[in-house]
Amino acid sequence: MAESNNGRFLRALRRQPVDRTPVWIMRQAGRYLPEYRAIREQAGNFMALCKTPELACEATLQPLRRFPLDAAILFSDILTVPDAMGLGLSVVEHHGPRFEKTVRSAADLRRLGRIDPCSDLAYVLDAVRLIKRELDGRAPLIGFAGSPWTTAAYMIEGVSGTDFRRGKKLLYQEPALAGKLLRLLADVISDYLAAQAEAGADAVMVFDSWGGALSAPMYQEFSLRYMERVVATLKETCPDTPVILFTRGGGVWLERIAACGCAAVGADWSVDLGEARKRLQGKVAIQGNLDPAALYSEPRIIREQVARTLASYGPGPGHVFNLGHGIQPDVEPDHVAAMVNAVHELSAPYHA
Amino acid sequence: MAESNNGRFLRALRRQPVDRTPVWIMRQAGRYLPEYRAIREQAGNFMALCKTPELACEATLQPLRRFPLDAAILFSDILTVPDAMGLGLSVVEHHGPRFEKTVRSAADLRRLGRIDPCSDLAYVLDAVRLIKRELDGRAPLIGFAGSPWTTAAYMIEGVSGTDFRRGKKLLYQEPALAGKLLRLLADVISDYLAAQAEAGADAVMVFDSWGGALSAPMYQEFSLRYMERVVATLKETCPDTPVILFTRGGGVWLERIAACGCAAVGADWSVDLGEARKRLQGKVAIQGNLDPAALYSEPRIIREQVARTLASYGPGPGHVFNLGHGIQPDVEPDHVAAMVNAVHELSAPYHA
Repeated sequence: MAESNNGRFLRALRRQPVDRTPVWIMRQAGRYLPEYRAIREQAGNFMALCKTPELACEATLQPLRRFPLDAAILFSDILTVPDAMGLGLSVVEHHGPRFEKTVRSAADLRRLGRIDPCSDLAYVLDAVRLIKRELDGRAPLIGFAGSPWTTAAYMIEGVSGTDFRRGKKLLYQEPALAGKLLRLLADVISDYLAAQAEAGADAVMVFDSWGGALSAPMYQEFSLRYMERVVATLKETCPDTPVILFTRGGGVWLERIAACGCAAVGADWSVDLGEARKRLQGKVAIQGNLDPAALYSEPRIIREQVARTLASYGPGPGHVFNLGHGIQPDVEPDHVAAMVNAVHELSAPYHA
Repeated sequence: MAESNNGRFLRALRRQPVDRTPVWIMRQAGRYLPEYRAIREQAGNFMALCKTPELACEATLQPLRRFPLDAAILFSDILTVPDAMGLGLSVVEHHGPRFEKTVRSAADLRRLGRIDPCSDLAYVLDAVRLIKRELDGRAPLIGFAGSPWTTAAYMIEGVSGTDFRRGKKLLYQEPALAGKLLRLLADVISDYLAAQAEAGADAVMVFDSWGGALSAPMYQEFSLRYMERVVATLKETCPDTPVILFTRGGGVWLERIAACGCAAVGADWSVDLGEARKRLQGKVAIQGNLDPAALYSEPRIIREQVARTLASYGPGPGHVFNLGHGIQPDVEPDHVAAMVNAVHELSAPYHA
């Protein structure tokens, strides 16, 4: 395990001074690491890996052994929630997730119950507790969930890799039904994130991976509105846990996202961090946003691109370095090391 | 053919008063029309349809017979340019385009020559002249090309449907080589669009379909910069032909796009038109941006969504109604009629 970077990430989320820009990587516990592929094989399938706390803990810690990352993120999946709600998830290698059941009608919705994460997702909370014990204060732990809309989109479609036309059609044709599903999910996701915080997560992140598939008014009405509800609930149930909201493809909506009470917004790679910082006027921290494809380049180029990203944010606190989206499975671990080291080395002058 | 709407589209592009908001649809000549599928079958394959001026003319005119559209757009493909440059394009149904050759090295680049669109893409210019004769002044004709970056991305990858990792890697690793390819393409595309204007196109549009795959600095350096070059050249060679630039996923960059001398910018559905209008301060017209998925809804809902889109732009000139991206092949033609009619009916008060 690398030297302790414990405070840096949480201080940056609070826009407090830091010595270096903290860095972690979306999907840092994942297939680009040979040791991850080994335990993934050992588990037999992806969901078994998620559902076995010892293995989820091991996957979470692996990237921190290799790289001096400033945060760990729980190894899990955003689809554990609809799985726990009874939809029957399976994740087939190279084909993505698939649900046995879908939610497309009022009758489907009635069959869904509000779950209690403490019992129905106990395996996640066990993993959180185990990871916290193993981390022993050397790095903070990030918990996470999908956004209500992103979770709903999967529940309506039943599979991944579509253009979410069924989901979007439901929003257009049956806004009241969609609203009921989204409200239920907002409540379940609020409970789930609060339970993760209670179990030890130091910050939580909401992944709105498919918010960018919505038009501007639909995003406001069907995605952001329910993320706001989650943030508001968390402010009551775990007021000391910072919340990061990340809508992929949501660069045009950063002001609106920042206004809903979160500590930080995620910025995908289409956003210029300097412009985003001006737009957000220091109200929230910004997490991002190196292009994941930059990691296919040689280390010299990666270092240049890190420098460019740090320079675009500029001096002062409030930046958490990350990719603009999850790391690709065919990236060389050495290239990741080049990125992480470059962030720490090159960011010091911005915090002098 | 519907009643003449000839001036409306060109006046809107110049931000001059109109009686109704003009409307056309990206990919309006396409697979959602049974009469298109019939001539597509008659042609044998997609490229034969592009390369036969009589059939390309027929495909162009078909949607205008059904709907009172305010503009025709040349039926063609952005990949005719790399095909003419010798890469050997084939378009396989349901599998997208594929090139026999790719451009990934200096040696590949040397083999590419600068083409003369007047001879090498004569079939396109013949189609433009034929369409203009058939239209006989009843509607303006839009010509188009892919952006230098979008065209280059296909030339580097050789196939569609990827995440453009080879193309992006080339930009990161070999920026000088990428620059040479992009400069060549900017020149070819400028010549090609000027030739279309010369043959009769009343406006031209540049489709930067994959600009949104780039990070903010890479977009500036490798996509926008070369679109600027195209616009600057066209301002000299055909100063009276308005240019529309459309970067899909480029909502965060609208100010920069508008600053490069174009008459109008295309806005995908993630953009709120009212906000975009404020950001652009009336300097250019805005084209867009109904979510294409809205057309899966019933006509009553489509009408509501049209109303919402018109209201978000607000009163006054400078709006060309369109979808935020190309129409999907499985949309009902009746739903398209509902959209077009709603635009004309509901927009009158905004121009009173």
